[in-house]
Amino acid sequence: MNFVAYNPTRLVFGAGSLSKLGELTSPYGKKALIVTGGNSVKKSGVFARAVASLNAAGVAVAECAGIEPNPRITSVKRGADIARAEKCDVVIALGGGSAMDASKVIAAAALYDGDPWNLIGHGQENWAIPKQALPIITVPTLAATGSEMNAGAVISNEETKVKSFVQAECLFPKVALVDPELTLSVPQDQTAYCVCDIITHVTEGYFNGVDGTPIQDRFAEGVIINAIEWGKKAVADGNNLDAREQVQWASIVALNGWVQAGTSGGYPVHMIEHALSAHHDITHGAGLAIVNPAWMRFAAKSRPERFAQFAERVFGLSPAGKDTTTLALEGIDAYVTFLKEIGCPTTLSEVGIGEELFEQYAKDAVLVVRDKEGNLLGRPPMSQDDIVAVLRSAL
Amino acid sequence: MNFVAYNPTRLVFGAGSLSKLGELTSPYGKKALIVTGGNSVKKSGVFARAVASLNAAGVAVAECAGIEPNPRITSVKRGADIARAEKCDVVIALGGGSAMDASKVIAAAALYDGDPWNLIGHGQENWAIPKQALPIITVPTLAATGSEMNAGAVISNEETKVKSFVQAECLFPKVALVDPELTLSVPQDQTAYCVCDIITHVTEGYFNGVDGTPIQDRFAEGVIINAIEWGKKAVADGNNLDAREQVQWASIVALNGWVQAGTSGGYPVHMIEHALSAHHDITHGAGLAIVNPAWMRFAAKSRPERFAQFAERVFGLSPAGKDTTTLALEGIDAYVTFLKEIGCPTTLSEVGIGEELFEQYAKDAVLVVRDKEGNLLGRPPMSQDDIVAVLRSAL
Repeated sequence: MNFVAYNPTRLVFGAGSLSKLGELTSPYGKKALIVTGGNSVKKSGVFARAVASLNAAGVAVAECAGIEPNPRITSVKRGADIARAEKCDVVIALGGGSAMDASKVIAAAALYDGDPWNLIGHGQENWAIPKQALPIITVPTLAATGSEMNAGAVISNEETKVKSFVQAECLFPKVALVDPELTLSVPQDQTAYCVCDIITHVTEGYFNGVDGTPIQDRFAEGVIINAIEWGKKAVADGNNLDAREQVQWASIVALNGWVQAGTSGGYPVHMIEHALSAHHDITHGAGLAIVNPAWMRFAAKSRPERFAQFAERVFGLSPAGKDTTTLALEGIDAYVTFLKEIGCPTTLSEVGIGEELFEQYAKDAVLVVRDKEGNLLGRPPMSQDDIVAVLRSAL
Repeated sequence: MNFVAYNPTRLVFGAGSLSKLGELTSPYGKKALIVTGGNSVKKSGVFARAVASLNAAGVAVAECAGIEPNPRITSVKRGADIARAEKCDVVIALGGGSAMDASKVIAAAALYDGDPWNLIGHGQENWAIPKQALPIITVPTLAATGSEMNAGAVISNEETKVKSFVQAECLFPKVALVDPELTLSVPQDQTAYCVCDIITHVTEGYFNGVDGTPIQDRFAEGVIINAIEWGKKAVADGNNLDAREQVQWASIVALNGWVQAGTSGGYPVHMIEHALSAHHDITHGAGLAIVNPAWMRFAAKSRPERFAQFAERVFGLSPAGKDTTTLALEGIDAYVTFLKEIGCPTTLSEVGIGEELFEQYAKDAVLVVRDKEGNLLGRPPMSQDDIVAVLRSAL
């Protein structure tokens, strides 16, 4: 194990904590750009409460509304233009993963003279990894992407149909203000997709990381066990605040570096899903529900013992009288059963995706994170043919 | 759950990483005060390697050697005087928990005009919680206290026989440079005490924290399971680098806030042990090995289900056919068996402590962290009589 762990974001967690937004923001400036997605934060009154808290603390507000799911680089440009025109000191994301991811790149783009798409890795030689950004504060209204407490962002280019990411220390939010009450109104289907997103963040490191990380294994299993248990409850009853709290806490630790510290490894399931949702308007979490089990069956062939551990520790399946591969596959089956139980799609046909563009998805998936042979990073590394085979198995 | 989680320390972990000390220090200044404990870092060559790395990076060195176990406020004063006289920009701890804790308070005392003992909480009204400190870099040579990646320090006053602590954001190290190779030479008995220290950091939050933290429960259990498994291996063979790595990683996460986030709660076992080691020259981890099981039996009376969960998940004990209290006590017995197996004392008589000063220890233990009724914080809160009874049961 040789690694660096670093996360300077201050997490302020708790039901009702939205009212602290003003006092938490005021140390960072006098004018905030609030970045939002759809209209739900307006309808629910959350936006008005956020503005009231900011104004009471002497912070004026500008707005960049309408960040779409799978946020686009054109929206980032628009947000950066507003931030500059309005002389904003700080960027506040008030929304889901798309608002948070867009906010991070808006905060960097506001201080960057070139084309913001340069900031996002998409196979280009002159990747301008952000060196500075306006202070960022995240206020998530979904428990899913973990973006509230990490330095990453995923942005799409609608022209080139490329969905890719950036990660840079200056993108760590100064504060993640996490109020689980804001997630009470998330619809049932979206809640299920969010739970799937959370779990997949953990399974990527768990299945693709290096050997010899037994503490991280236990952390990962702990997050998955609880995301399953409390995810079911949150899907069954969206007004269950205890469940919303646990799911939101799971979403934070699933991708703030605590579980992944020292594991490294690729994110093959995410890379494949990004290729899908760059071409189709599917929710990221739903795409993951389809790709992850298909990928698991592929990866379990080369490392059944790892998937057997998953089966035993996460689902409590007994190894008695079974060979490792059988136990491994039972664990994956149990995971698919859970996904179906909460209402996630588990096949491409359920979301209307056929095999027409499989070659293209495979090509897109290896665009950014590939090894010297051009394979997608992961355990095992995947050729484009492997990716097509996995997608075919998910039809 | 309403809590704040914040830890801005950059952790650089890995065998051989001592050679990076210079490059990691140079951003913080041109002259470093190196704070050390006994002579072992000189004999082993670690001190010389650290100085060479610093000098190669253009960082000059001053030295404060001889920090004793249970570091004293007089040593802190001496270190702060050297830091000021030598115009040091940064303080580097190169040693165990005592060197690290002393370094933190030296870094604060160097910028504080009053008596450094004011910085440490000891029941005084004018507790001067540190507001600023020189940048701190920790390089642990023991895997135990977790001090390398947190903002706390425990300091003793040899005059008043009070051992107490301070916690302040300015005491977070800028960098924790953790090289498990530096722990290869730790003697067998000290290794065992260190493992006990690590586990006790986790059990405090696990048994005294609030209800409804299932993810933190799993994290805590994961750290304990691995500290036991790898602790045995490190004690059996001090040259087992894999075991040293895992134990050191456990020591970091046991007290860097990841496991404790949102759990709050007191540290009754630590408070009682501090009272003991303020009066007797016993190793902190050995004191914990004695106090913790006795405290567990006391606390299990009021919350057997929590200790039953510990028995089942950490030691894999079966609940079949047992009442909760029986299972709870079996878990505590299993923990004592483990402590004995690695060579820790588990009774006061083994370290030559009698009942003469029990009333005094009880009084000292409630000095800093007590509730309105004067009880020691914890689940359940402890009166001074409770503390005496627990100590009596450990005779």
